[in-house]
Amino acid sequence: MSKPTIPKGTRDFSPSVMMKRNYIFEVIQRSFRNYGFKQIETPSMESLATLTGKYGEEGDRLIFKILNRGEKLSSALKNIDQSTSQGKIEHQLCNEALRYDLTVPFARYVVQHQNEISFPFKRYQLQPVWRADRPQKGRYREFYQCDADVVGSNSLNNEIEFISLIDEVFSDLQIKDFTIKVNNRKVLSGISEITGEKDKLIDLTVAIDKLEKIGEEKVIEELVEKGISANAIEQLKPILRIQGTFTEKLKELRVILASSETGMKGLNEMETIFNFFDKNGLQNAKLELDMTLARGLNYYTGAIIEVVGEQGTSSLCGGGRYDDLTGIFGLKNISGVGISFGADRIYDLMEEKGLFPDLQAHSTQLLIVNNGNNEEQMLVLAAEFRKAGIHTEFYPDAAKFNKQLKYANANDIPYVLFDGKGDDADKYELKDMHSGEQNFHPFNDIVSLLKK
Amino acid sequence: MSKPTIPKGTRDFSPSVMMKRNYIFEVIQRSFRNYGFKQIETPSMESLATLTGKYGEEGDRLIFKILNRGEKLSSALKNIDQSTSQGKIEHQLCNEALRYDLTVPFARYVVQHQNEISFPFKRYQLQPVWRADRPQKGRYREFYQCDADVVGSNSLNNEIEFISLIDEVFSDLQIKDFTIKVNNRKVLSGISEITGEKDKLIDLTVAIDKLEKIGEEKVIEELVEKGISANAIEQLKPILRIQGTFTEKLKELRVILASSETGMKGLNEMETIFNFFDKNGLQNAKLELDMTLARGLNYYTGAIIEVVGEQGTSSLCGGGRYDDLTGIFGLKNISGVGISFGADRIYDLMEEKGLFPDLQAHSTQLLIVNNGNNEEQMLVLAAEFRKAGIHTEFYPDAAKFNKQLKYANANDIPYVLFDGKGDDADKYELKDMHSGEQNFHPFNDIVSLLKK
Repeated sequence: MSKPTIPKGTRDFSPSVMMKRNYIFEVIQRSFRNYGFKQIETPSMESLATLTGKYGEEGDRLIFKILNRGEKLSSALKNIDQSTSQGKIEHQLCNEALRYDLTVPFARYVVQHQNEISFPFKRYQLQPVWRADRPQKGRYREFYQCDADVVGSNSLNNEIEFISLIDEVFSDLQIKDFTIKVNNRKVLSGISEITGEKDKLIDLTVAIDKLEKIGEEKVIEELVEKGISANAIEQLKPILRIQGTFTEKLKELRVILASSETGMKGLNEMETIFNFFDKNGLQNAKLELDMTLARGLNYYTGAIIEVVGEQGTSSLCGGGRYDDLTGIFGLKNISGVGISFGADRIYDLMEEKGLFPDLQAHSTQLLIVNNGNNEEQMLVLAAEFRKAGIHTEFYPDAAKFNKQLKYANANDIPYVLFDGKGDDADKYELKDMHSGEQNFHPFNDIVSLLKK
Repeated sequence: MSKPTIPKGTRDFSPSVMMKRNYIFEVIQRSFRNYGFKQIETPSMESLATLTGKYGEEGDRLIFKILNRGEKLSSALKNIDQSTSQGKIEHQLCNEALRYDLTVPFARYVVQHQNEISFPFKRYQLQPVWRADRPQKGRYREFYQCDADVVGSNSLNNEIEFISLIDEVFSDLQIKDFTIKVNNRKVLSGISEITGEKDKLIDLTVAIDKLEKIGEEKVIEELVEKGISANAIEQLKPILRIQGTFTEKLKELRVILASSETGMKGLNEMETIFNFFDKNGLQNAKLELDMTLARGLNYYTGAIIEVVGEQGTSSLCGGGRYDDLTGIFGLKNISGVGISFGADRIYDLMEEKGLFPDLQAHSTQLLIVNNGNNEEQMLVLAAEFRKAGIHTEFYPDAAKFNKQLKYANANDIPYVLFDGKGDDADKYELKDMHSGEQNFHPFNDIVSLLKK
């Protein structure tokens, strides 16, 4: 029999990896709660109709669909029309699908439960999502998203609090070197206006978004290909070349976008945010205006936020304001703003930089050796240590001591206790697995020692 | 547009429900860790081949299968043989499926990672599972399981520690009135031996398992139907009628099963467990020998455990020993024992009995009212309260006070702060939302008050 395997792009998480993942999730959740976000969970599967058409054509293809069962399946199978598109056949065979992100299910939740919700609604959600993407380094078919959103409030105070929260989370994780990039969809709209390419906003932004990766020359090539006029490109060049501090960039953009009301509104919003932090400070974050930042453009209507580590390449967290998310489900005029932490990328960064603290306190602290003589007393002793707050294991079998010590080592258990009572019947022999030292101590001393 | 809905048998969890669910999960996890269990996670989807054939024919039908994509799907669609069984067609259309429980994925994990694992392996797992069951009250298509297992140890010490752990978990949850029923598959084997119906072990046990629900008469009817001989039924009757304490039942069974070596071995195992707790006590659990207890019989080979509340009907927790779980994936001779907590039933019981503690500390403690004048100072003040350990919200919009107070009420926020500084500029006006009292306090006093 060959060893069983798991599906491509999925992962098993071993105990040591779980401890580190949980640590990241706990730090993020602590801040979410600290800021008043309330947790919800939605089902892993949604009606296929709820998800279809929300992520573009490519997204629709990447949604994992769940096969119908019983009668429904057999009648669908009989009526398959081979001449129709695969997408249509999928809809005949499947009524449910795995969620693709947490945002669309959240929008569905808000619309479905609108009468129970007291707006503004601050929710957080920490659940896996599934995408049938081609797996590659750092990209999985099942991965966790950690999202927080506020819906039902237009105030820029929300954006300010999200930036504070992001600063708190990364600082608490001891990630000191990171940049929060800020842009505004209205600025992007302004750029398309003043270049006279208002109807090509998407093409423009997709190209501009690549500036950092491929450089100005290639961006311009792409713009030409997309049919952007030579005149517009000339107007764009100074925008692409803007350098300097947040304030300097704002100043230059104010000149360039002066004729666009929307653009100026976006600049004002960014200035409000920047001024707050300029005056009140941030723990570790650097705040940067990046007018090439776009992220799922069709979605965002105001602020766009992205966090990058020191290399500046992969996104550790992102988000923005969207003015009509619930509109897709028929509830209009609910503005929202939200962020999403990328746990996998944060994990990789922390692992690389050695930023995880000692998480031993979460696992076994003491192993009681089984010598086969007095198992009942040792079981009771284990229970007493647990009652005293020490995570304790009693080795279940009377195996060779060597095997039991190997077990302690393999499981990073720092102390091992033998029932080798010395002259004093109240003492136990304790072995420090790091130093190798072995000494006799009474129960209470062992508890104090292990609690340190 | 009609309101969107979620698939049959699935649920949205609102913030107040999530707090209670998290509380249950936290108490269970605390005990798991206390006893040295280490957390793992496995993917939501497994290869369909990993799951097929592990849960019986009915189980195979209830597994949610995931439709293949792209090339693989289109070629399968072209080659569908309508004359073959639906089960076969499903396997042509699907290579992956959602996990049906945590046990089979755990067995797969142990086999796949056997070289990294130091046995005995004590793992816990807390993840959702999916079953296409007909939804009904208390039965869902997506629900969480909380499992702990030890694999690689034959010792009865494991069974003893699991019973202690169960006692600890329910006692910590303030569920005082519960019974841990214990049986042993070897006793059931002994019964089938002495009745001369060794080959009808399953039929016998399935019928006996229903004794409490349908009564002796109906059980006997069922046994007759299954072709159990009149002689065997006569021999069974005294077993079905055994009453009394754990010790009394053991004594009677020792007489009845005297000729069955296997049966006597099962009784010895139960006696060891019972004697331990008879001597060392349990916090709240009552321990009961229930020789009608079977649970997934094909699976268990030794101890069988089930926890019921005072009504004695629905199972709050269950488990047992299995001697060859990983054998299905080619790794022989790894004995295991495990338990699984039913979070949904525990939730329902605690809700019914009003056993949930005040979980307010997990959500917002203070709402700072927005009067539209000094939002920047109020944002900074909110940050200061958070730094002091108070979960704080600043209402983002300068809405009417009434609306903001309504928000506090709807979200169970116990205190609301107004920037109505009195004569003393260092004081804030604090409203206690329960008593309605409103007084001026300095910052530090508010922190102390809220931390109580």
